[in-house]
Amino acid sequence: MKIDIITAFPKMFVGSFTESIIGRAIKNKIININFINIRSFSNDKHKKIDDRPFGGGCGMVIKIEPVYYAIKSTGVKKKNKKYKNFYTKPLVIYMTPQGKILKHKLILDFSKYKHLVIVCGHYEGIDERIKNYVDEEISIGNYVLTGGEIPAMVLIDSITRILPGVIKSDSIKNDSFFNGLCDYPSYTRPVVFKNHKVPDILLSGNHKNINDWRIKKSYNKTIKHKIDSK
Amino acid sequence: MKIDIITAFPKMFVGSFTESIIGRAIKNKIININFINIRSFSNDKHKKIDDRPFGGGCGMVIKIEPVYYAIKSTGVKKKNKKYKNFYTKPLVIYMTPQGKILKHKLILDFSKYKHLVIVCGHYEGIDERIKNYVDEEISIGNYVLTGGEIPAMVLIDSITRILPGVIKSDSIKNDSFFNGLCDYPSYTRPVVFKNHKVPDILLSGNHKNINDWRIKKSYNKTIKHKIDSK
Repeated sequence: MKIDIITAFPKMFVGSFTESIIGRAIKNKIININFINIRSFSNDKHKKIDDRPFGGGCGMVIKIEPVYYAIKSTGVKKKNKKYKNFYTKPLVIYMTPQGKILKHKLILDFSKYKHLVIVCGHYEGIDERIKNYVDEEISIGNYVLTGGEIPAMVLIDSITRILPGVIKSDSIKNDSFFNGLCDYPSYTRPVVFKNHKVPDILLSGNHKNINDWRIKKSYNKTIKHKIDSK
Repeated sequence: MKIDIITAFPKMFVGSFTESIIGRAIKNKIININFINIRSFSNDKHKKIDDRPFGGGCGMVIKIEPVYYAIKSTGVKKKNKKYKNFYTKPLVIYMTPQGKILKHKLILDFSKYKHLVIVCGHYEGIDERIKNYVDEEISIGNYVLTGGEIPAMVLIDSITRILPGVIKSDSIKNDSFFNGLCDYPSYTRPVVFKNHKVPDILLSGNHKNINDWRIKKSYNKTIKHKIDSK
């Protein structure tokens, strides 16, 4: 999968994809990440890409022009028409707090594309006309961050880990939320730590009972999680 | 604010706090970020920190011992009793998909602490007994990532930007979700780009009308956002 990240802050990504599972996916050429700096498409001699908002108000807005040309530079022609050539054309995703909330179903869908173009806003966001040039607007949750860079890392991590060959498919099936259920609790050695013991059932060797216990725990966790999240 | 990050992958954070608003907050000593590598607390000669789960199953579980000693090393004595010394003691937050979903109200609360200790899981998570040593379990959304490192960046970014002196308080008041409403659409120059024009009202100079339009747009966006997110 080819991933183009359009950002004014490519340095923010320096360490985030070097380690662990994502680092290996890059090394094994399962994903290929490429950075496109919005500033390279500024026609301003100071490489300025933002300006004050029309109608007044605080903060700076990223101009539509450099973002538009950055998107074009990835080979995107125009917005996808979802009913044809769905997964072969690049999908342009804009990270914004006003987007659809990211969830497992969307991640599964995005993972089928050969080429993703991820656009990161910053400051007070990108000029609203960006909507004419993106296929999806995605938010990672109901909170505000300084930019779309960390949300882009969230999106890329979540997609990469389910690509074929990245981690064992058994691990993915046990994932939290994969079945709409939270994960079951895991324990490892030692059996007793500071008076806290591993549940006896996990030491019993009875795999049917262990499985039943895990399913029950997953259900309980999910119910508690849903109540807590309200 | 002092922030200790407990992780097996400190290199993942290299770029994420160097730029823009968070970079300035560190330079201006508003936040002070410190990394604690779980591997330093392994008593294994190969600095191994994980082991297979009791009861079988796939994946590796991070052991409780090195994480416990990493938490202790930050000066944490025991779990907070919320009714006393609320904001002066360190708050220990475990990033896990099974935690409470992050939202603005939690971020506001966390921003009042002088010292946060953020624990990042990885692989199949940390031994369940971690619950005895953390004050809060936080999830950034209903999806799975390879570890708690990127979620920790999300948490730190969201908290830092609302700390006094980091960004103008007017900007925070206009934030998406600050009033439970999504942000209004922003436009900047040029007035016309590829046949897409800035709404006339923003060019009118009538500030009452502009304000009314923005409130209406915020409401509409919020309603659409809630429907889309279902």
